[in-house]
Amino acid sequence: MIKRTFIRTAVLALGIFCCTVSCKHTPETSTDTTTSAAPSGQQKEPFAIVIHGGAGTILRKNMTPEREAEYRKVLEKAIRTGYDILKNGGSGLDAVQKTVNVMENSPLFNAGKGAVFTHDGKNELDASIMDGKTLNAGAVAGVTTVKNPITLARTVMEKSEHVILARKGAEDFAEEQGLEIVDPSYFYTESRMKALERIREREKSELDHDGKTAFYDPIIKDAKFGTVGCVALDKNGNLAAATSTGGMTNKRWGRIGDSPIIGAGTYANNQTCAVSSTGWGEFFIRGMVAYDISALMEYKGMSLKDAAKEVIQKKLPGLGGNGGIIAVDHLGNMVMEFNTAGMYRASMNAKGELHVGIYEN
Amino acid sequence: MIKRTFIRTAVLALGIFCCTVSCKHTPETSTDTTTSAAPSGQQKEPFAIVIHGGAGTILRKNMTPEREAEYRKVLEKAIRTGYDILKNGGSGLDAVQKTVNVMENSPLFNAGKGAVFTHDGKNELDASIMDGKTLNAGAVAGVTTVKNPITLARTVMEKSEHVILARKGAEDFAEEQGLEIVDPSYFYTESRMKALERIREREKSELDHDGKTAFYDPIIKDAKFGTVGCVALDKNGNLAAATSTGGMTNKRWGRIGDSPIIGAGTYANNQTCAVSSTGWGEFFIRGMVAYDISALMEYKGMSLKDAAKEVIQKKLPGLGGNGGIIAVDHLGNMVMEFNTAGMYRASMNAKGELHVGIYEN
Repeated sequence: MIKRTFIRTAVLALGIFCCTVSCKHTPETSTDTTTSAAPSGQQKEPFAIVIHGGAGTILRKNMTPEREAEYRKVLEKAIRTGYDILKNGGSGLDAVQKTVNVMENSPLFNAGKGAVFTHDGKNELDASIMDGKTLNAGAVAGVTTVKNPITLARTVMEKSEHVILARKGAEDFAEEQGLEIVDPSYFYTESRMKALERIREREKSELDHDGKTAFYDPIIKDAKFGTVGCVALDKNGNLAAATSTGGMTNKRWGRIGDSPIIGAGTYANNQTCAVSSTGWGEFFIRGMVAYDISALMEYKGMSLKDAAKEVIQKKLPGLGGNGGIIAVDHLGNMVMEFNTAGMYRASMNAKGELHVGIYEN
Repeated sequence: MIKRTFIRTAVLALGIFCCTVSCKHTPETSTDTTTSAAPSGQQKEPFAIVIHGGAGTILRKNMTPEREAEYRKVLEKAIRTGYDILKNGGSGLDAVQKTVNVMENSPLFNAGKGAVFTHDGKNELDASIMDGKTLNAGAVAGVTTVKNPITLARTVMEKSEHVILARKGAEDFAEEQGLEIVDPSYFYTESRMKALERIREREKSELDHDGKTAFYDPIIKDAKFGTVGCVALDKNGNLAAATSTGGMTNKRWGRIGDSPIIGAGTYANNQTCAVSSTGWGEFFIRGMVAYDISALMEYKGMSLKDAAKEVIQKKLPGLGGNGGIIAVDHLGNMVMEFNTAGMYRASMNAKGELHVGIYEN
């Protein structure tokens, strides 16, 4: 609560309308359930896939039709990549990795190419992946030279005895394993640099330098959001989840958010569900958001839909956090739950029915 | 499972008797419950404190009476530090931090002074702390210049808007906040350097260089264990947990274990319990061990004792992992549960009754 108070105070002192905007948009429920939970006579979806491209203050009034079309195009391209893998009998792990790769390679999303800049003007990338069959997992934090962090996370899972590798060490491991290495300048995009410059300018002109308002971006309203993720159920009943991000604009001090933290940003368990998170990472860590949804299903017998609603609409705001999750359970029920104004998202069921969404409705 | 197979294969191929030793010591239950769970007419302990100094293949036959006396002396000094704080009405957070400081400052334990060496001959320290009242948390990973990592973790919690800071960035933050900075050589101890040299020698002479056996230390039997931690309930009913470690001997690639991961290495929640973990970190991350004990209490109504037993004796070995936890619940019930041959540990209740343990019994 202390942090929340600090940040609130800073925000109020600045008269930033960010809070006002976000306060207006705390919908009681923003559940997007594209396959309704099957009743007792449970009909199992043979496979299913859901993706997100970040949750936050995404408002129609700030979006041009052209830009919206671009987002929809990449979301569709990404999810169809995973869908095709699943349809052809591929694994959930392959589906989530390859789908996230598409979003990592697009400059539109805050992951891979297009990642936001740190306080020092670098792109430091985090990612994690989990296999619901074995409960094995891999994650990387703060890498700057690996083109596709989610691919490295999978390599950590499959080719090392570790779960989390960080920074230079993780990059050395990536090289040893023959992953695609790029010059850090590969991740540069003008729009993200401008976002950093705006924050720096603001810090210089208006702020003490305690970094307390480092989150704020006057254009995109909040700089702390932006992540990509994918969850999938494959034809063999295996669940998988993957999350990749550049973190928050202007992040400092080697900050690690929830995306590389198993149980917070990513979780998968064939007995329950697969989850990928996006939002204000610190609160997702404190709330163990991804695992908590699974625990509510396993220990309280809740449906995925109810568990996701409980965590995202009650427990997370109770801590002071916001954001959203995508999830799929072992029956193929898909949920996209968020307490922000919007979340880039898409889902496809086994019939090939595609749903793409950006705003609350 | 893949990793487990890899490691098992490597271990078997080497004919290391480490596995044999550890297989012999998988006691069905090694619960050390120093305050029995109160029956329905619940008598609340006004305060309570538990510490650990690492779990692993700690066998009486490998210990001299002098060395055992040294361990017992520091364990008692540490726990009395926190006990006095609690007795005088101090906070659980102060108690766990100051208690861990004592163990960090002792060369006997793998935390602070006395931390193990990485593959590159460095000491990279991890720590985390959580406040059960606010569910706020702080953690640091891979710091090399901060004398007391747990103090830095608390500073991250209280003086930044973040939860986890890593490596150089975390060190910069420590300096900005005026924490005690030391030359990395401060952490050097001859015994830990010898342990690294033994592993290096073995790698050179007997192994391929894939790092798969990096865990093994022929003298201490397993190099992956060793952590310190403390949990406390204070007179105001607030729970707190803290964990600090040097990680595993010969660790590479910026490996992060469970100690700085909230929910895996450390968790505290006034509604349930406070937990600090020690063991094979990768499995504690995959199992969300610390939070899982809390979730079993919250969602299934289990007692702390039963929840700890379920996680440490069933779920964790089911994944292939081993280690232990210490915990205290909101009623002051204390548990020290491990599935290894031993765990350095101590507990004190409000009456001042001291219990110090090392081996299974």
